[in-house]
Amino acid sequence: MGRPPAPLLSADRIAGAAMDLVNTTGGFTVPELARVLKVRPSSLYNHVAGRRQIIELLRERAMSEVTLPADDPDRPWADVVADIMRTYRQSYARYPRLIPLLTAHAVNSDHALTMYNVLAATFSRAGFDPADVLRAITLVDSYVLGSALDVAAPDEPWHTGAEVGPALAAALGTGSPKPARADDAFEFGIGVLLRGLAAVRSASDRD
Amino acid sequence: MGRPPAPLLSADRIAGAAMDLVNTTGGFTVPELARVLKVRPSSLYNHVAGRRQIIELLRERAMSEVTLPADDPDRPWADVVADIMRTYRQSYARYPRLIPLLTAHAVNSDHALTMYNVLAATFSRAGFDPADVLRAITLVDSYVLGSALDVAAPDEPWHTGAEVGPALAAALGTGSPKPARADDAFEFGIGVLLRGLAAVRSASDRD
Repeated sequence: MGRPPAPLLSADRIAGAAMDLVNTTGGFTVPELARVLKVRPSSLYNHVAGRRQIIELLRERAMSEVTLPADDPDRPWADVVADIMRTYRQSYARYPRLIPLLTAHAVNSDHALTMYNVLAATFSRAGFDPADVLRAITLVDSYVLGSALDVAAPDEPWHTGAEVGPALAAALGTGSPKPARADDAFEFGIGVLLRGLAAVRSASDRD
Repeated sequence: MGRPPAPLLSADRIAGAAMDLVNTTGGFTVPELARVLKVRPSSLYNHVAGRRQIIELLRERAMSEVTLPADDPDRPWADVVADIMRTYRQSYARYPRLIPLLTAHAVNSDHALTMYNVLAATFSRAGFDPADVLRAITLVDSYVLGSALDVAAPDEPWHTGAEVGPALAAALGTGSPKPARADDAFEFGIGVLLRGLAAVRSASDRD
């Protein structure tokens, strides 16, 4: 009988091992990956071009639950953007420790580019000029990624102690347990962002 | 002569070694720290209570360049919040890989609590009720931390290739090199957030 054969090495299996390392240690190196997979580093290069490509495979996994809204030019732009923000945050919230690795590398995966294309087309259709489209996408990106980290925050994000002043104490007293608190704050933020974006757009006389 | 004596172990030296590990690998464990410092793990516990406390020491370092505006009740609340956002982002942008570690643990350091107290008092003075104060602080936190990650992003955050549609291509064509692009987008976002917050506050009839 003997022991079962080791599973075949593949890009998918390499990405899975890299994701496990990121989730537990915050990062990965190619030698660490080889050790975990019990292969030589050179074997990995038969399946992936290098660390850069592995990071893009991890980005695809983080994006894997992003479902983009149907392309409907009659739908209000703010609704389309809000939907993308929700699905994007939910998908990335599964891998908080991956986020700084992804933001440190240029996006080069199809699924991610598709999402940015939809955001750009939607903001453009809404009347933002190209420079503001780039700024608005960056705003959405930064807020969503920060909010994805908040999903992984502890139930009580601040220790209440002697140093907490009355205004902060009153605010903390209103928070429900997670995930309700994080979800509620995220929806508040979506509303604020969309109202602010609409105001900025009108102010620039582009309608 | 002999070799110079090893520097004395201290909480500060432990935090420095932990920060180096986080910056290079994305995380740290107590055994790793002991190995780097060439001491036994038990020696570390003479200076710090454990991993939790080391993380708070790292939070103090990330906060160390946050300079809070002087307490002036006559200054517009939006100006105070914008100043805090700028200094908070700049301070955290130095340590992008630390951010998911900090958000995963409850805040328990004095400097951070002081900042949250000022934010809470400012939003409260502006007329937000306690529940909205908590939501507004969470919004500021998420946007600032996501923007701090954007500071570490590459010059070209998106690879431009065949998959880039016309709206995204036009937007990407407007971006200046880093850090100007990230700074410009961050200021745009501050403007959007503050206008949106003002609109939400007025709409709730609390003035």
